[in-house]
Amino acid sequence: MAESLEQMPKSETIKLRERHIGQSCKLFFKSSPLKIVKGVGQYMFDEKGTRYLDCMNNVAHVGHCQPDVVKAGQEQMALLSTNNRFLHDNIVVCARRLTATMPEPLSVCFFVNSGSEANDLALRLAQAHTGNKDIITLDHAYHGHLTSMIDISPYKFNQIKNGKKDWVHVAPCPDVYRGKYCADDYPNQDLGLKYAEDIKHICDDLKVKGRGVCTYIAESLLSVGGQILPPKNYFKNVFRYVREAGGVCIIDEVQVGFGRVGSHMWAFQLYGVVPDIVTVGKPMGNGHPVAAVITTLEIATSFKNTGIEYFNTYGGNPVSCAIANAVMEVIERDNLQENALIVGKHLMTELKKLSKRRKIIGDVRGVGLFIGIELVRSRREKTPATAEAKHIVSRMKEQKILVSSDGPDRNVLKLKPPMVFTIENANEFVSTLDEVLQEIDIDTEEELEVTRTVIKATISSMDLDNNPTCTKTNPVFVRAS
Amino acid sequence: MAESLEQMPKSETIKLRERHIGQSCKLFFKSSPLKIVKGVGQYMFDEKGTRYLDCMNNVAHVGHCQPDVVKAGQEQMALLSTNNRFLHDNIVVCARRLTATMPEPLSVCFFVNSGSEANDLALRLAQAHTGNKDIITLDHAYHGHLTSMIDISPYKFNQIKNGKKDWVHVAPCPDVYRGKYCADDYPNQDLGLKYAEDIKHICDDLKVKGRGVCTYIAESLLSVGGQILPPKNYFKNVFRYVREAGGVCIIDEVQVGFGRVGSHMWAFQLYGVVPDIVTVGKPMGNGHPVAAVITTLEIATSFKNTGIEYFNTYGGNPVSCAIANAVMEVIERDNLQENALIVGKHLMTELKKLSKRRKIIGDVRGVGLFIGIELVRSRREKTPATAEAKHIVSRMKEQKILVSSDGPDRNVLKLKPPMVFTIENANEFVSTLDEVLQEIDIDTEEELEVTRTVIKATISSMDLDNNPTCTKTNPVFVRAS
Repeated sequence: MAESLEQMPKSETIKLRERHIGQSCKLFFKSSPLKIVKGVGQYMFDEKGTRYLDCMNNVAHVGHCQPDVVKAGQEQMALLSTNNRFLHDNIVVCARRLTATMPEPLSVCFFVNSGSEANDLALRLAQAHTGNKDIITLDHAYHGHLTSMIDISPYKFNQIKNGKKDWVHVAPCPDVYRGKYCADDYPNQDLGLKYAEDIKHICDDLKVKGRGVCTYIAESLLSVGGQILPPKNYFKNVFRYVREAGGVCIIDEVQVGFGRVGSHMWAFQLYGVVPDIVTVGKPMGNGHPVAAVITTLEIATSFKNTGIEYFNTYGGNPVSCAIANAVMEVIERDNLQENALIVGKHLMTELKKLSKRRKIIGDVRGVGLFIGIELVRSRREKTPATAEAKHIVSRMKEQKILVSSDGPDRNVLKLKPPMVFTIENANEFVSTLDEVLQEIDIDTEEELEVTRTVIKATISSMDLDNNPTCTKTNPVFVRAS
Repeated sequence: MAESLEQMPKSETIKLRERHIGQSCKLFFKSSPLKIVKGVGQYMFDEKGTRYLDCMNNVAHVGHCQPDVVKAGQEQMALLSTNNRFLHDNIVVCARRLTATMPEPLSVCFFVNSGSEANDLALRLAQAHTGNKDIITLDHAYHGHLTSMIDISPYKFNQIKNGKKDWVHVAPCPDVYRGKYCADDYPNQDLGLKYAEDIKHICDDLKVKGRGVCTYIAESLLSVGGQILPPKNYFKNVFRYVREAGGVCIIDEVQVGFGRVGSHMWAFQLYGVVPDIVTVGKPMGNGHPVAAVITTLEIATSFKNTGIEYFNTYGGNPVSCAIANAVMEVIERDNLQENALIVGKHLMTELKKLSKRRKIIGDVRGVGLFIGIELVRSRREKTPATAEAKHIVSRMKEQKILVSSDGPDRNVLKLKPPMVFTIENANEFVSTLDEVLQEIDIDTEEELEVTRTVIKATISSMDLDNNPTCTKTNPVFVRAS
């Protein structure tokens, strides 16, 4: 069936892409890229009809080509798609539904086309409201591809000489596994408070200089940063310090929102806090470009009082909103949040079991269908198993399972599958990972030699490069002490 | 038929909008906004089924809900929508088709979701390629809603105290009707060269300071600036000066591209120049959020060599590209460029005739289906007829014709209708405008008194506000000397 979905052979697609698409746009599996022609639920199909289990795609949130979402988009496309300077029901219904999922006083929406646009607008709102300029961001954070987002994304600006602007302040990533304060090193301490105190120090330093804080921005759970779950009391304390310093708190739910965490619609709700501004994106359109900023009436009013109109040509158009409405409807109707909770718990249990047998697994962490498996060469030293992670991603692909690696050392396997992921899918993932790990899990020096050779051969033949923007790497196969 | 397209009464839509949509997002016809529920070709329909002729909507480029474009979107939505880290034919076909319409060496594309995102990326490309920071922009220009775009858009940053950054340099808008150099004042002079010399002075000043130019950015034809057509030799000279100063030239075709000018696919082609970077947007998706940056291999390579990946989640997804491909296909198959040429010429002829009879018309200018009608209270003094323009927009709406006003004095009626606009539509527009102008065209002091009263009543009852971000206004009905 799939053959007919190609307009040209794969080799021709590659040739045209090399000629006409900027080389800064990277492919997954660089030297052996996949041509995907069809998506159904949690599966993607290549041009030969081969089926892959998609564990990486948090955009196809309610499943690739979910029929009700597709239908909503199709019907609205045939009726009207125009800008929001005309009244339309879809945008107000979408805003009502979206704000109903948020705690008070988050009641006002701005619709945009991407998470990047949402975060850019969030910064503008914060600036208009506070009148301040200084921004606090987290190490390894990524908030988008725009100029203004690169400025506040260490993941990107650390690659640029003198990339950090003087009004940007980088706080430690609240990673209790390998961050500044690790659970191992600080037993029985409130690491949430400890990490928050670093934010307080930034606020205090600014105060000494006579400057107030504009905003603190963070993902509720750090995705590109390595699937990090901040410790319990972190946000509560951070929000207090930032607000005391005159700033507002932006929570970026672009990657993790819309029920992925299972127990709640939004990941920030896990922490019992209420942000001043929330940005949402990717899952919202199930692939369609739609995103939003949700804020308080007070902040929206400050922005309005600047007298500057905000007009976003496509933002909140009837098609985008029809699709977003259908996505929210399907999440609710099909109990996908509950599914994320159940399947996520099962997956965590099985992965923790696996970690008992496979020493390369240094940490398994997650909530709902947002899970990270951190690979290390030595549990004691926590030496990042970067090359091994690459190898595993490649071997999983050969087994028709798509998963990615990320984090500053690119040694964290990231799971953020469509929300229709089943217990069977979870079991298939774990058992396949087990098999693949068996090939490389290392116990003795002798085994290491053998494995090193196998992996080296694989990597040189595949030239894997599924995340080439990573800044920190460690030498391949230098055994930790 | 249209009644069933409402989910709630209009009053309820307004109430929900007030509650849940940021007030910085303005409506057309503020106090009497239209609820539009359906679009077909060059027509829009409100909730009561009333049909409006759409003369303002350059996004619905090949006509609202053009069936082939809708079908292409619908079919692809049901098949696959995922990011461009997987190979797909649609993106490469779109890039091949798009670059085929551009002169050499514009051969490399980056796909994004909006004109704003395209212009932001264009600046990043220019910075990566030149290593310079200083940017030259035109007075009254608008390039998008993002932080980085507001920085280079006088239309926006002039509303902010100290809004101009020191690395932004504002050159005069090359307006030969009311700009720095008017055709009246400089008969038989090459105004293209004169306006370009202002750019040269900026470049020279920077050179004295030891700084090179990063980029010059301009729309080929200035839209928000008041439907301005730069004079003949303008771009040729500007490009020479900017390149001599080490800069690259970005041409923004977001509003005016895709055949609107009739004689060419791109408005910059009217001027016989080849930009280094071109941004395209709005018409590209006929309402769907898709836009692109097209540049040279050399510049794309400089960007690649920064080592920073460019990843745009939705940019170039299979649905966006299927739609963009269908739009280009329909333009070609239905000879819409030729239609724009023919209907545009007819419209210009009729409007010029009208201007002979209606003294309020100070200038008629345009090319293809991009036309501006500049209204003045005195032809000699060129006093902007701002309030009159507002009144006309409102009266035209009552006559079921949608047109907007823009320009720094908001006294320019803007025509940029869907490209399926017919000779009959043009005639209807001109004859309705004639009737409306008859109500207010002013010849004697006595008539002025009467007209003043009529218009004042209309405006206070309608509270028109179709472009509230304008910075310059002139007092209502203070007669020019």
